[in-house]
Amino acid sequence: MHSIKELQQIIDQAVKETTYPAEPKELYEPISYLMSLGGKRLRPALVLMATDLFNGDIKAALAPALAIELFHNFTLMHDDIMDKAPLRRGKPTVHAKWNESVAILSGDVMFVKAYKMMIQVKPDILIQVLEIFNTTAVGVCEGQQIDMNFELRDEVSVAEYIEMIRLKTAVLLGGALKIGALIGEASETDAQHLYEFGENLGIAFQLQDDILDVYGDPEKFGKQVGGDIISNKKTFLLITALALAKGDVLEELNHWLSLKEFNPEEKVMAVRAIYDQLGIRTLSESKMQSYAEKSITEFNLINVPGENKGVLLEFAEMLVERQH
Amino acid sequence: MHSIKELQQIIDQAVKETTYPAEPKELYEPISYLMSLGGKRLRPALVLMATDLFNGDIKAALAPALAIELFHNFTLMHDDIMDKAPLRRGKPTVHAKWNESVAILSGDVMFVKAYKMMIQVKPDILIQVLEIFNTTAVGVCEGQQIDMNFELRDEVSVAEYIEMIRLKTAVLLGGALKIGALIGEASETDAQHLYEFGENLGIAFQLQDDILDVYGDPEKFGKQVGGDIISNKKTFLLITALALAKGDVLEELNHWLSLKEFNPEEKVMAVRAIYDQLGIRTLSESKMQSYAEKSITEFNLINVPGENKGVLLEFAEMLVERQH
Repeated sequence: MHSIKELQQIIDQAVKETTYPAEPKELYEPISYLMSLGGKRLRPALVLMATDLFNGDIKAALAPALAIELFHNFTLMHDDIMDKAPLRRGKPTVHAKWNESVAILSGDVMFVKAYKMMIQVKPDILIQVLEIFNTTAVGVCEGQQIDMNFELRDEVSVAEYIEMIRLKTAVLLGGALKIGALIGEASETDAQHLYEFGENLGIAFQLQDDILDVYGDPEKFGKQVGGDIISNKKTFLLITALALAKGDVLEELNHWLSLKEFNPEEKVMAVRAIYDQLGIRTLSESKMQSYAEKSITEFNLINVPGENKGVLLEFAEMLVERQH
Repeated sequence: MHSIKELQQIIDQAVKETTYPAEPKELYEPISYLMSLGGKRLRPALVLMATDLFNGDIKAALAPALAIELFHNFTLMHDDIMDKAPLRRGKPTVHAKWNESVAILSGDVMFVKAYKMMIQVKPDILIQVLEIFNTTAVGVCEGQQIDMNFELRDEVSVAEYIEMIRLKTAVLLGGALKIGALIGEASETDAQHLYEFGENLGIAFQLQDDILDVYGDPEKFGKQVGGDIISNKKTFLLITALALAKGDVLEELNHWLSLKEFNPEEKVMAVRAIYDQLGIRTLSESKMQSYAEKSITEFNLINVPGENKGVLLEFAEMLVERQH
């Protein structure tokens, strides 16, 4: 088995070695730029780990792993336009550094490149791999649209929120793992268990992200703590707080949500105090934990020697216990 | 063999019968909307005609034909954002009717749907079909970027212009035909001849479009005649005129190109008069004819009974002799 670190190094090396045509430079420079900004390379690592779990050939999984990373970065390039985000990983976003047209078209071609990498699997699994990839891609787009729709809605239920993060974040983790499993010649049953592991882990991962956004250590978190509170983002925490708050507490929460002008630090502290009063952190952590447990239950059903399972288990723990 | 009309009806029917999920509606309504606006359905018809040419099963070619039409419309949806176009086929563009985010994301999901349709070919040709489709898609994106770059450049050569329209328009015609040929179980040699036929025909088709934009009959053309002149678009006609004009004629042409404010009709008439003086129409028609002839030369090399060839020949003639 390969360690997480080894696999991430293999991916980083492969990303560095990937070259694109020189012209038209507006089309290809943004791809190299965004891909070089780093990130955790979680998703491609999952492809390799899944192949490794079944003692498969991780070299055969490298192109599909890069396809997953290209696809993920393509969605970031387009999402950043829609979200009017100025920064990505602390650097200017593609539409900010170049312009919107470049970010649209360069993203499109990045998506084609992802397919070009993805079809480099053995012919006998090609159709299955593409079906997973297509389903995943549709899910991610639907999740992004639903997320944007939530901004315009007054009320969102917990179930709707979980479904949104399932689509926007979790199906890609599941899809990456299932593709890796097929490359590792896993049975359909085992591949499906691994998919369910990934999807539940992905929901836990996003819930942990929501918790860290409010309760993370600013020095470890890497981005502004409280960003979700400042923007009134309807996360599990806010949705639950709105469901539980009554009387004065609800009034105070709604007051902070309604303010057009405010001191950001003051708002973050006030809303966090309300969350504390309502026990939101514990509720969120227990929700997160329940998805983490579901993921482990699925993982335990996979029929491979126990010694093969250590790396993915460690990875899953790392994801839900991470501080950044 | 099926007539052009029959094939177009089959496509229109299939487009009408294609349904998309109801939610999120911002993602799927724009796809139905744009696909329902009609258009000539040239590209999907080419897939079916190519399969028919080799006595293949056109039912097996229908999903890939729709994939080509979905892909074409996806590129239109994104190009219209970049070009800030308010209208498409006389109706509001998707970004104008909804908004830019919807047009970006709905386009992305449309592209995935195109892949979902495209993989519905027999497993033994799947990888080849996808390689053609990917190469085609990259070409179309590169062509669009080069076209946008031309707007910012002072000089563009005829060779550069032809290369741009080859990528932006012609590779898709070639790709559609080659995919249809593979479905019809054509030999690699015949499929490649058909590709070359399509690519050359595509260049002729675009040159004819440029000519019609200046010399078309307003009643038949369907869009504003002179649009390219009004926007100083660097078409074969303008590039050639700038290369040939001298002295006072060049000065007058440059004068019209430099004007920020002008009477559109007056500018169209004046530039057209310069084109007439320089014989641009004849030069353009002869250039167009040379590509049409190259396409026929390739077509003649295809090893199928003569009676199979009539429909595609008729279609090619229709394309280059069309008045709209």
